Amino acid sequence: MGASPPQPPRKPLPEGFLDSLHSAFGERLATGEAIRSQHGQSEAHFEPALPDAVVFARSTEDVVELVRLCVAAGVPIVAYGAGTSIEGNALPVRGGVTVDLSQMDAILAVNAEDFDCTVQAGVRREQLNEHLRDQGLFFPIDPGANATIGGMAATRASGTNAVRYGTMREAILSLRVVTPDGRDIRTSRRARKSAAGYDLTRLMIGSEGTLGIITEVTLRLHAIPEAISSAVCSFETLEGAVDTVVQSIQLGVPLARVEILDDLQMKAVNRWSKLDYPELTTLFFEFHGSSRYVEEQVETVREIADMNGGSAFRWSNLPEERSKLWKARHEAYYAAVNLRPGAVGWATDVCVPISRLAECITETKRDLEGSSVPGTILGHVGDGNFHVVFSMDPDAPAEMEEVEAINARLVERALAMDGTCTGEHGIGLGKQDWLVAELGEAVEMMRLIKRALDPQDLFNPGKIFAFSE
Amino acid sequence: MGASPPQPPRKPLPEGFLDSLHSAFGERLATGEAIRSQHGQSEAHFEPALPDAVVFARSTEDVVELVRLCVAAGVPIVAYGAGTSIEGNALPVRGGVTVDLSQMDAILAVNAEDFDCTVQAGVRREQLNEHLRDQGLFFPIDPGANATIGGMAATRASGTNAVRYGTMREAILSLRVVTPDGRDIRTSRRARKSAAGYDLTRLMIGSEGTLGIITEVTLRLHAIPEAISSAVCSFETLEGAVDTVVQSIQLGVPLARVEILDDLQMKAVNRWSKLDYPELTTLFFEFHGSSRYVEEQVETVREIADMNGGSAFRWSNLPEERSKLWKARHEAYYAAVNLRPGAVGWATDVCVPISRLAECITETKRDLEGSSVPGTILGHVGDGNFHVVFSMDPDAPAEMEEVEAINARLVERALAMDGTCTGEHGIGLGKQDWLVAELGEAVEMMRLIKRALDPQDLFNPGKIFAFSE
Repeated sequence: MGASPPQPPRKPLPEGFLDSLHSAFGERLATGEAIRSQHGQSEAHFEPALPDAVVFARSTEDVVELVRLCVAAGVPIVAYGAGTSIEGNALPVRGGVTVDLSQMDAILAVNAEDFDCTVQAGVRREQLNEHLRDQGLFFPIDPGANATIGGMAATRASGTNAVRYGTMREAILSLRVVTPDGRDIRTSRRARKSAAGYDLTRLMIGSEGTLGIITEVTLRLHAIPEAISSAVCSFETLEGAVDTVVQSIQLGVPLARVEILDDLQMKAVNRWSKLDYPELTTLFFEFHGSSRYVEEQVETVREIADMNGGSAFRWSNLPEERSKLWKARHEAYYAAVNLRPGAVGWATDVCVPISRLAECITETKRDLEGSSVPGTILGHVGDGNFHVVFSMDPDAPAEMEEVEAINARLVERALAMDGTCTGEHGIGLGKQDWLVAELGEAVEMMRLIKRALDPQDLFNPGKIFAFSE
Repeated sequence: MGASPPQPPRKPLPEGFLDSLHSAFGERLATGEAIRSQHGQSEAHFEPALPDAVVFARSTEDVVELVRLCVAAGVPIVAYGAGTSIEGNALPVRGGVTVDLSQMDAILAVNAEDFDCTVQAGVRREQLNEHLRDQGLFFPIDPGANATIGGMAATRASGTNAVRYGTMREAILSLRVVTPDGRDIRTSRRARKSAAGYDLTRLMIGSEGTLGIITEVTLRLHAIPEAISSAVCSFETLEGAVDTVVQSIQLGVPLARVEILDDLQMKAVNRWSKLDYPELTTLFFEFHGSSRYVEEQVETVREIADMNGGSAFRWSNLPEERSKLWKARHEAYYAAVNLRPGAVGWATDVCVPISRLAECITETKRDLEGSSVPGTILGHVGDGNFHVVFSMDPDAPAEMEEVEAINARLVERALAMDGTCTGEHGIGLGKQDWLVAELGEAVEMMRLIKRALDPQDLFNPGKIFAFSE
């Protein structure tokens, strides 16, 4: 359980199909090995799977045309943004056409008074925040990688700010989508809320390209807070760290970010980012608000940390200090993978009710300590969501097996605690059996929807679940 | 456009069907005129439509059995909670069986440390909050009426606290649903977030009973804040009131509630609730947080209100004062309807981007002033959502026509501003044409989903949209 599911044999492209792509897209069509190979890799441990062709879309109209050609010819179509997903979500395992949306990178509108903006799917989150800064606004969702907004929507991404600002589920007001029947729809208007019909916006968020191609996204924005402070605190015990977070939330402290990193992850961070933090279980915090209110938040959390055995509580409101801290956090994945030279990364994530988090992490830690493959723990502790990142020798198949077994035990542990097999990475290729273990017959309802909207199973086929069973 | 759509002729129940209901449900089955009539009324102006039978469910198993019987016999099934919806959402316009869930009123679990609880669909929101109070927790969604949690889920309700705490869309972690194929599913686990497959939770929220019957709801809860203050402030101009809200949000004040009531609504409130507020455009505020932070919020908003021509800014942190204020707000609908003795209510709502709200309300106000039917404006101004409530003479058909025309202009105005035809009441019977005007071909995607999940069109048929077109 847990590995990539077997795929049916790849079908060759129908005769004349590439010609029709060429007449439609000219130079925007690529069939050379290098570009196909680039779109057939994954950030993690999955086997490469090359598309037969790549089309670089420049407009929603391009996507409509491509969808119509693919559907008419029965050819799979897979959307691609920045390639930063880690469950093989964008790998074209049955070949066909990859539609690369990275050139659709226009910021179409910023409505400052309404705290929203509309962007093309290929806009990256860092680009968006640079664009917004002058207007005193920011887009909070931060999965670490500089992903595209379209990809983040398709995988229901979240990250470090979700505890305060929510995930992509809450961040999106409306989507423009090309559906499998070739329609160009908007899922909602720009109003902040609506009770008008089925929530197609939320249905598309997290559907991993299996129900249509997202080409534009309207996002909620937030005012850059008057004051931002960050803090770091080490703990002798894992429970002390988790309890600090739970008690802070119970007291109503609106933590903007709170990240946990275990001792091995701190060692990896120190080594990779050339820092000298204590190599203990550590919390990284961020506080947003008015100056007075941020001060009050820091004071409250410091007291709670003290009561829970926290030490070396270091806070700062200097932007340089903050950047250094979050840069280290953002590089944590690469730091962990590179604990061994030449290693390849395997990242997994689960999310449990926060009352079970300390227990879940403690048991996982114990399991990791018995393993020959280094694995670090880091996570978004305010949401009950954490990751394990393995630094795996690509030439040792036994390590792959060992990691698969640890991952299986981790997911089983999370499910037994009424948690989920993935908090933010998605199902992709890696967690299909676990989806069924988690939701049972509800998966049959998903299949009915998939069959109704994409009867030929051409949109990112082979992902999330088997089409028919 | 806007009135109830025509329905196909009602089919008589198949022979023996009532007998099979009787053997299954015994005394929980009612076929008498009085109970059928009670379940065939709506809170608003719609024609009564009586079910052929009412079944009082006491468990999810009851609902599963009823669904199987109805589906096998091709009989419509409509869920009913407290009957407080106002777009005719629960009227059984094609007859069949109404399943009354009000006896499923158990609070199944409160997980205080996780800030969540699981309740049966028939639990009412006031009952839930009374139950939670001792644990220092509350459930924030407050549509005014003491609705059931299941009904609030099915209509994607929101109300006065949504500006701070979100709507039912954000408040629900997971649902237990009986699907049209008779399965008893859970849409999600209890983890705070998940990227596991399609978001069936959000698909069901707002589906108005057309895709299945919600029997249990797992809700996010919040800590009762250390301090709560309320405030009232009158404005000479509508723009002054709206600008006060927009500027407060821009400055990052986390308003917990902010309601606008126009001069006529204030007159109605004064008369109905025996109060003496100035009869001017008025904002009702509520602030949540630590004592110091609430003080800071009140001070900031007071200054902003001053700059925008606010007068008589009256704030209080006394619970009695606050209760009086919000009781008046909760009674506003009845106050407005009863501006004329013997009148019947017609309530409509739209939601627009907040930058257009002042303009939208001003134009609507002008339209209302030219009408012979009294209509008040009140709304959740922080979300851009407002209501118009008419006090309509039931014996004057010309008034109905006049109100329909005003409503049509209101919705067209909101759509022209990239708003929605309903912020929180749902589509029900009253806004089906407007749904198509709002979302165009996206409605075809909704129809594909409906057909796939409920191929016989038995679940609350005739609501949201026509089944096939």
